[in-house]
Amino acid sequence: MRNILIVGAGKSSSYLVKYLLDKAPHESLSVTIGDINTENVKKLIGDSKHARAIQLNVFDDESRSQAIKNADIVVSMLPARYHFEVAKDCVKYGKHLVTASYVSKEMRELDDEVKSKGLVFMNEIGVDPGIDHMSAMQVIDRIRKDGGKVILFESFTGGLVAPESDNNLWNYKFTWNPRNVVVAGQGGTAKFLQEGTYKYVPYYRLFRRTEFLEVEGFGRFEAYPNRDSLKYQHEYGLNNVKTLYRGTMRRVGYSRAWNVFVQLGMTDDGYTMEESENMSYREFVNLFLPYSPTDSVELKFRHQLNIDQDDIMWDKFEELDLFSSDKKIGIKQATPAQALQKILMDSWALDSDDKDMIVMYHIFGYEKDGKKYQIDSTMVTLGEDQTYTAMAKTVGLPVAMATLGILNGKIQTPGVQIPITPEIYEPILDELKEYGIKFNEEDKNYLGYNPLNI
Amino acid sequence: MRNILIVGAGKSSSYLVKYLLDKAPHESLSVTIGDINTENVKKLIGDSKHARAIQLNVFDDESRSQAIKNADIVVSMLPARYHFEVAKDCVKYGKHLVTASYVSKEMRELDDEVKSKGLVFMNEIGVDPGIDHMSAMQVIDRIRKDGGKVILFESFTGGLVAPESDNNLWNYKFTWNPRNVVVAGQGGTAKFLQEGTYKYVPYYRLFRRTEFLEVEGFGRFEAYPNRDSLKYQHEYGLNNVKTLYRGTMRRVGYSRAWNVFVQLGMTDDGYTMEESENMSYREFVNLFLPYSPTDSVELKFRHQLNIDQDDIMWDKFEELDLFSSDKKIGIKQATPAQALQKILMDSWALDSDDKDMIVMYHIFGYEKDGKKYQIDSTMVTLGEDQTYTAMAKTVGLPVAMATLGILNGKIQTPGVQIPITPEIYEPILDELKEYGIKFNEEDKNYLGYNPLNI
Repeated sequence: MRNILIVGAGKSSSYLVKYLLDKAPHESLSVTIGDINTENVKKLIGDSKHARAIQLNVFDDESRSQAIKNADIVVSMLPARYHFEVAKDCVKYGKHLVTASYVSKEMRELDDEVKSKGLVFMNEIGVDPGIDHMSAMQVIDRIRKDGGKVILFESFTGGLVAPESDNNLWNYKFTWNPRNVVVAGQGGTAKFLQEGTYKYVPYYRLFRRTEFLEVEGFGRFEAYPNRDSLKYQHEYGLNNVKTLYRGTMRRVGYSRAWNVFVQLGMTDDGYTMEESENMSYREFVNLFLPYSPTDSVELKFRHQLNIDQDDIMWDKFEELDLFSSDKKIGIKQATPAQALQKILMDSWALDSDDKDMIVMYHIFGYEKDGKKYQIDSTMVTLGEDQTYTAMAKTVGLPVAMATLGILNGKIQTPGVQIPITPEIYEPILDELKEYGIKFNEEDKNYLGYNPLNI
Repeated sequence: MRNILIVGAGKSSSYLVKYLLDKAPHESLSVTIGDINTENVKKLIGDSKHARAIQLNVFDDESRSQAIKNADIVVSMLPARYHFEVAKDCVKYGKHLVTASYVSKEMRELDDEVKSKGLVFMNEIGVDPGIDHMSAMQVIDRIRKDGGKVILFESFTGGLVAPESDNNLWNYKFTWNPRNVVVAGQGGTAKFLQEGTYKYVPYYRLFRRTEFLEVEGFGRFEAYPNRDSLKYQHEYGLNNVKTLYRGTMRRVGYSRAWNVFVQLGMTDDGYTMEESENMSYREFVNLFLPYSPTDSVELKFRHQLNIDQDDIMWDKFEELDLFSSDKKIGIKQATPAQALQKILMDSWALDSDDKDMIVMYHIFGYEKDGKKYQIDSTMVTLGEDQTYTAMAKTVGLPVAMATLGILNGKIQTPGVQIPITPEIYEPILDELKEYGIKFNEEDKNYLGYNPLNI
């Protein structure tokens, strides 16, 4: 019997648990799932005899360390800021660890100890980060092996609503943490490389610097730049690349309308507003517009942002009921971002039969024997329902596969790491295909940003 | 003999020193001026027998405490972040303190100790903050005494170039710390009150939310909102005011052009750029524009910001030589703000015979016997040369007068304070008139932001 401890059983855990329970009889797995609230855990387990739920507060040292001691490997599905509590005990008791989150500074600093104990601490093995790393590195390594030199890498991911549930003017619903959507792009200037020149885009220009992407069968998307596209330059071995650009995908038109919220200051999370609890949506909007004794909030809004009333963008704001005098923010000492989130939740919450979608788009440009080539690689995964979402599938399956891979000694290079080596990505990308998560590659004429080579 | 210690003798100290040396024989003053570099000090002292220069490093505990022990009162003209070193010793050795800077949190926390020792720690007694406090409170107190109720207070200050030296398209030169000009408005959403409604303006909208102000004999100015207009609401006793707005004055057209730098991200001081040392001005600008193999930096710049080439705004950027391929930033690991400052210094540094100007504009609205009234109060001070600047005059004279007022027991209420009581503002505003610093008051029809009372 091998004991797997999963800490935290939120929205992204459904496929993770399902996969491990399906494998449990053959692989002799016993799965313990700890959460502060065991209700969802019990739903996920059902009547499986290979799993049990325990109540677990990650800040209660005794119950946490006891649970970790009893495990052979630990999967932390907690919010990223809580991983470190788990990680420290994993080092202490010599247990492997798997997370889908970015490697924090504290986590990175455990590397020496983790290595010396021969442990695998696998991070960033969800979808983005996760499947993006693996699918990108598979192609990059192949190009290199064939004698090619990568000169361009662009990578885009979007968590969106599935086409069949896509029925609002924004072509967007909250398929994951709404807060992250509202503050997306904040916390630093976006940085990327285009044809050898650095480019910097401040937050308040981000949603006006989009690019279009076509995905066969799914139509056109747009992407705005991520904060730091150069983050993985060194780890991917792309130090001499000319173009390096990572972005977030939305349906076309989303960013132009979202930019209005940004421009007005409605996405600010840095201060609280006076009298926010009894504030109407209309009053909230008016905080960001010049005072006028006569002009309506609507007119001021349109005038400030130069929105014509026959522009579809205008309908998007009306659809949100943004100018309602009746609806209230209802949150004490709300930040603008919290108030905006409240307004958006009315319109963008998933209906019970809505399905989500994960879209990924990589572009690889390379040179070989003096010629330039391009490969476009795309992946679309659709959710099944609101438990078995595309998000849960693309996050949970690679986490589950890595967990079993480590238990079975298929993944054994020790250290705090991300999935960028063939040892990890080859078996996992292969197995993901069985679950319908596969990339469509297409050879294209190299385009880049200087197609005429001027 | 009364001993005055002045710590720090930068640009703003000329009138301060001159005033005290002029008064020295009559008032039996002995002035010690300490600076890390005594060259400027010696120039300011000349052959006066009432003053001496000492070398003083504020972080050298022994020499600092020795100098403070020997003084009856200390004037700190150091950069604001260094005042606390001086303040601690003033508390320890029981000396009064005068500064022209904002009261920091640490300074505020000394209040109890300062009061218990009967000391006066006078802060914010330069021009802005300083003369603005005093001139505003004098009118506000008068309105109240006459039975009026203040319903509106707006206050604007600008440090500008004098009309006779105003010879560039921006109508602006650096008359004080250039760095503060480049990052002006950063560090928090602007907050103010208009007709009873709160208004919030994010940094990147600030320079598009300007108001016009006419000053007789000096023409039209514009003002953009300061960070927190509500900061002094309580201290001024304006808790029930309907409109409260503080702003920074520029010549008309400055803000619209400056906004372009903000929009592109060129004022960002939060990260350093790669390869900044050998970067040309043109390459710097191009960092913030989309890549194109063919389009010129000029065209991309105009296109991104919708600037027509026959718009005077365009000439403003050309005047700065912003698109030069020859001129280099020349700073290692520069932030965008540092690079922009370098570019602006080429064009906006004062010529040796240039003069500066301080402009202040207050608007007071009040109700009395059911009617509404308005008083506009303006002040303009011109510099004489580059030592005896308007900035040095309006900062240094009130500091000097407060220092003598405390020494002579005219100002004696103890505590960490700002100049908002008659005890302080009456004698100082009176004496400032002798030096040509006076306010022009004009009764106007009450306008406010709802002139038709709708």
